[in-house]
Amino acid sequence: MLKKEDLKNISFNYDAAVVLDVLRATTTITTALKNGCRGIIPAAGVEEAKELALKDPGLLLCGERAAVKLPGFHLGNSPLEYKAETVKNKKAALTTTNGTKTIKMAAEKAGTVLIGCLLNARAAAGRLKDFSGDILLACAGTKNSFSLEDTLAAGMIIKEFLLLNSINNYSGRTLAAARSKNTSIYENEIPLNNNLDNQVILDDAAAAAYRLALYYNSRTLDALYDSLHGQKLAQMGMHDDLIYCSKVNSCSIVPVYKNGIITT
Amino acid sequence: MLKKEDLKNISFNYDAAVVLDVLRATTTITTALKNGCRGIIPAAGVEEAKELALKDPGLLLCGERAAVKLPGFHLGNSPLEYKAETVKNKKAALTTTNGTKTIKMAAEKAGTVLIGCLLNARAAAGRLKDFSGDILLACAGTKNSFSLEDTLAAGMIIKEFLLLNSINNYSGRTLAAARSKNTSIYENEIPLNNNLDNQVILDDAAAAAYRLALYYNSRTLDALYDSLHGQKLAQMGMHDDLIYCSKVNSCSIVPVYKNGIITT
Repeated sequence: MLKKEDLKNISFNYDAAVVLDVLRATTTITTALKNGCRGIIPAAGVEEAKELALKDPGLLLCGERAAVKLPGFHLGNSPLEYKAETVKNKKAALTTTNGTKTIKMAAEKAGTVLIGCLLNARAAAGRLKDFSGDILLACAGTKNSFSLEDTLAAGMIIKEFLLLNSINNYSGRTLAAARSKNTSIYENEIPLNNNLDNQVILDDAAAAAYRLALYYNSRTLDALYDSLHGQKLAQMGMHDDLIYCSKVNSCSIVPVYKNGIITT
Repeated sequence: MLKKEDLKNISFNYDAAVVLDVLRATTTITTALKNGCRGIIPAAGVEEAKELALKDPGLLLCGERAAVKLPGFHLGNSPLEYKAETVKNKKAALTTTNGTKTIKMAAEKAGTVLIGCLLNARAAAGRLKDFSGDILLACAGTKNSFSLEDTLAAGMIIKEFLLLNSINNYSGRTLAAARSKNTSIYENEIPLNNNLDNQVILDDAAAAAYRLALYYNSRTLDALYDSLHGQKLAQMGMHDDLIYCSKVNSCSIVPVYKNGIITT
């Protein structure tokens, strides 16, 4: 097994990544763990999830395609389904269109993979101060496209991280916001900052995400309704999901993906 | 030769595209044409530009790599070089790292290719009302990355377009903001709007660009200094270029790329 130092030697691009799929995979994962779920195994596909359930009959089989619960599955991808009475002390396998795939891709890029959403933006920023190197904010997006809601969550984490940073100095840190695309996470150019010390460096995508967070500020629900995926969920009647997913800084849980499973 | 109707039949993805490379190719092209330049031929590479100059000795040979004028070329990529006394009644060949390539790629995606920047955002929006179909805002970016300044210009055009739209109704129009990437322009998913008529539809990248424009509003120079490429130009001493490129809605010229040359 590799030690953390060895992991560095095999040259991950980033010390840590935060995977963001606000609508709704990472909000759902955060909620499930907050409500006592013992662990969530992200499965890339439906078959992989079913195979996991065959090996472990106690496993909750969870997931969606096109925002709808998969046939024969216990739960879909709404965080509102993951109540304590349903998930406490249980493990789950989860497969979603974009989020679970991005988690696995992020694990190839970063030594530590955290799960973020609007709910735990401040908590995730607090966790990031444990890392001295570059950080990737990996936006899952929808159908490989730029996603407004994930970019907003990246911006909220950056906003909270910069607030922490104004109190304590962290040097040479780069925050990069990226969008996952097909089979690889697209990496934005990581700039070298030549003229400033003791400063967090934002690449342009991270800078734009930060300004987007300042623009929307507490109006996170407005942002979800501005997003195409939010509009789609609204058309399907899932207004309560949007309201829940918009509750910024309401949760202190920051799930971690390690050895194939997400736990706290 | 194909008529416009035939062009439609060979199924362009977009009716019109606006190519944006604020720092500095599209600002430079707009400035050159405003100052009487007869036409600019975008050349993908240095050799192509040199070959064009061999065929036409009167041609101004223009371009940069790494923001520096190419050796033996008449002009670099600073809009401040393209004064009337230098460019009036002359033609030019221009090759830049990102901008000229994006122009050629856009021509494969859209029936009409316009050249946009902060200077002509309002004028470009005015021109877009001539098109009844989908519109692509093609951000050239820097080294294939998301670019803050090009996204801001896309947002400014959307802002002006929506202002026009509140006066006159245009239906079923989609505005998509995209980023060029290597050899093809990445296309965001074009949504179908199911619940609203007579409305401009923004994809998530376009929605984020629009909010970014509302956030920065008249502080466009701040945005250029927030961008990595702006910071690089500033470090090279090009503050006057940044100030010039930030002057939103200062120019009514909207260059058009057609048959291999950009004219007014």
